[in-house]
Amino acid sequence: MITVSEAEQIILSHRKDYGVESVPFLEANGRVLAEDILADRDLPPYDRVTMDGIVIRYADYESGNRLFRITATQAAGDAPIRHLNADCCLEIMTGAACSGDADTVIPYEKIQVSDGVARIIDEPVARGQNIHRQGQDRRQGETVMTAGHRIGPAHISMAASVGKSVLQVKKAPRIVIVSSGDELVEVTETPLPYQIRRSNNYSSWAVLKRHYGIEAEMLHLPDNEEIIRSEIARFQKDFDVIILSGGVSMGKFDYIPQALEATGVQLQFHKVRQRPGKPFWFGTFGDKGVVFALPGNPVSTFMCLHRYVLPWLEASLGFPEAAPLYAVLGKQVHFEPALTYYIQVKLAHSSEARLLAQPVEGHGSGDFSNLLHADAFLELPAERNTFFEGEVLRIFPFKNA
Amino acid sequence: MITVSEAEQIILSHRKDYGVESVPFLEANGRVLAEDILADRDLPPYDRVTMDGIVIRYADYESGNRLFRITATQAAGDAPIRHLNADCCLEIMTGAACSGDADTVIPYEKIQVSDGVARIIDEPVARGQNIHRQGQDRRQGETVMTAGHRIGPAHISMAASVGKSVLQVKKAPRIVIVSSGDELVEVTETPLPYQIRRSNNYSSWAVLKRHYGIEAEMLHLPDNEEIIRSEIARFQKDFDVIILSGGVSMGKFDYIPQALEATGVQLQFHKVRQRPGKPFWFGTFGDKGVVFALPGNPVSTFMCLHRYVLPWLEASLGFPEAAPLYAVLGKQVHFEPALTYYIQVKLAHSSEARLLAQPVEGHGSGDFSNLLHADAFLELPAERNTFFEGEVLRIFPFKNA
Repeated sequence: MITVSEAEQIILSHRKDYGVESVPFLEANGRVLAEDILADRDLPPYDRVTMDGIVIRYADYESGNRLFRITATQAAGDAPIRHLNADCCLEIMTGAACSGDADTVIPYEKIQVSDGVARIIDEPVARGQNIHRQGQDRRQGETVMTAGHRIGPAHISMAASVGKSVLQVKKAPRIVIVSSGDELVEVTETPLPYQIRRSNNYSSWAVLKRHYGIEAEMLHLPDNEEIIRSEIARFQKDFDVIILSGGVSMGKFDYIPQALEATGVQLQFHKVRQRPGKPFWFGTFGDKGVVFALPGNPVSTFMCLHRYVLPWLEASLGFPEAAPLYAVLGKQVHFEPALTYYIQVKLAHSSEARLLAQPVEGHGSGDFSNLLHADAFLELPAERNTFFEGEVLRIFPFKNA
Repeated sequence: MITVSEAEQIILSHRKDYGVESVPFLEANGRVLAEDILADRDLPPYDRVTMDGIVIRYADYESGNRLFRITATQAAGDAPIRHLNADCCLEIMTGAACSGDADTVIPYEKIQVSDGVARIIDEPVARGQNIHRQGQDRRQGETVMTAGHRIGPAHISMAASVGKSVLQVKKAPRIVIVSSGDELVEVTETPLPYQIRRSNNYSSWAVLKRHYGIEAEMLHLPDNEEIIRSEIARFQKDFDVIILSGGVSMGKFDYIPQALEATGVQLQFHKVRQRPGKPFWFGTFGDKGVVFALPGNPVSTFMCLHRYVLPWLEASLGFPEAAPLYAVLGKQVHFEPALTYYIQVKLAHSSEARLLAQPVEGHGSGDFSNLLHADAFLELPAERNTFFEGEVLRIFPFKNA
């Protein structure tokens, strides 16, 4: 049986590239940019006034002038008014374009105006003040955003200002989420006393939708060897990623591993030295196909999703590599088996800027309702058995909000 | 001029309740639950087998029996098979329902089967092992989720398992985002030399869409007093929340504050002792209307959105109150004016589980391109001027991903 870090390495070595697509810039939030974006003009594109007031030539102030006759008013969006001389100024508004040798803006708060003449009443005045110089942030043709960055609201705004209304972003794989097990019925059905409703697939679906904008297909397989085999063969044609849950342990009707191999999926590993999630099965098919066959226990599915599937997905989508996250264990934990143990924790931020992780007590790994009260899995390495309060350990936060 | 914390208190005192709506459970991720959800059955609903193997009566093991004839096989989803006696066992699969006095599951790994007889080869066996008892997690009728919690993937999964395919969630206000300023043109237009493209509204829009599922309307107002007044009057009929940007400083064509008051918006405050964002204007109208008139500088808009608008929105949507977040300042900062100063920082998590904030250097608060490289605003209180490396200060992370 391989270790957690071996499993992680194998999975990440099978990261794939699903290409590029164009999306309207407003829909690109959260996607990974797949092109460099250049400034189509200088940024700012002109000497841009940043305060409302008057604009003068600094040289006139320097030579002692404090009174300036207002010759005109220039609003933002007006063509620049050029004419200025030693005794004159323009009244000018935030966002307007300076021109010629007008180079210094004195805000209303620092002048007094009477009879069309502005008097400076608050000094000193600095050369070039309150003007955001053309090209000060970026020169035309310079790169403002590079490929490989994740797009956030500031990128959306920058795309708008350089006129990119369509952006090239990394394309997501086609994903199918497959439940299995004859004891499972639909959410809207009333289960028989020995049946339960399907549930854990929906959490995977919701995470993919909300955090990656991926609408995965959802399907269910009965415990029927023939159907499983033909469906799995079909999935390999229609999807890039197959996320199965259930049917991968030692049960008599756990046909999934055989069906995967019989239909040409290349087994990369089966079973990982971890709890929960030991029976995890991982394989690949064709050029770009991967199969995550996750154990059916809801906590196992949820853990494997966060520990393995999402990091693979993020790597394949070209996300910049994220540094590991750590938290301070809030309570001693003892765990005997030589397995990496994932406990559910509630996170809190201390006023000393530390991240604290308090174990959520429950009825064991099968108790899915614990997850409602936890924020993350905390990873307890297999090499040790006792973990002390105050130790710093790695966490995998749930993709919640 | 009021302080940042006064502004915050006034805004939060005007939190509103926009009621409740029903959504399909799969679309409820990220929303706030507005009803208590009860278990419609015990959880688990039956004594649920958690390992594949055989099921026996513990009493038979206790009285020394180690050999059990397999009388039948029960798959998950099969009606429970009742008949058992001292020499017999059932082969049983994960997810199946135990019944009668069969109370202990011995996994395949711990038995040897020959000629239809299972022999226990790995001891000890514990009473009740590998069975998740009926009602162990929740009893029928018990609350599994309470109103006022934010819905995450685990809640989606729990809703599915108790058969709630539709959930009551808090309803969002109708929001309009309004830009103003005659220097602004559309993203798809080619600006004249003294024009720029609209941009900062899009970042607000993108944040509302991605993090709250709100599709705000986007509109633009020209610098025309009459149009501004009639449009603002109309907005009060059509929307609950009006987010304006620009036109709130001292400029001659900054008609927005007068237009707001002339159309019946109640001014709550104008100007806050902060940089950026000093000219921020906040008011209310009718029962449930609020107006955030934000300064038009893109960094000011973005800061006020995160510092004021989103906390108000989250309070109004019934989000559980979030604890403030802190980070360690990575570099000394000096700031002279008696204003709360928001600097842009890049966050990093240390391997000691601390959150570090490194100031992002740029060309001043007007340089929007800095935001592309930052993750948060760090708040430097107005009462002091020098902030030292290693100090712990409050942060407001950008809503990025």
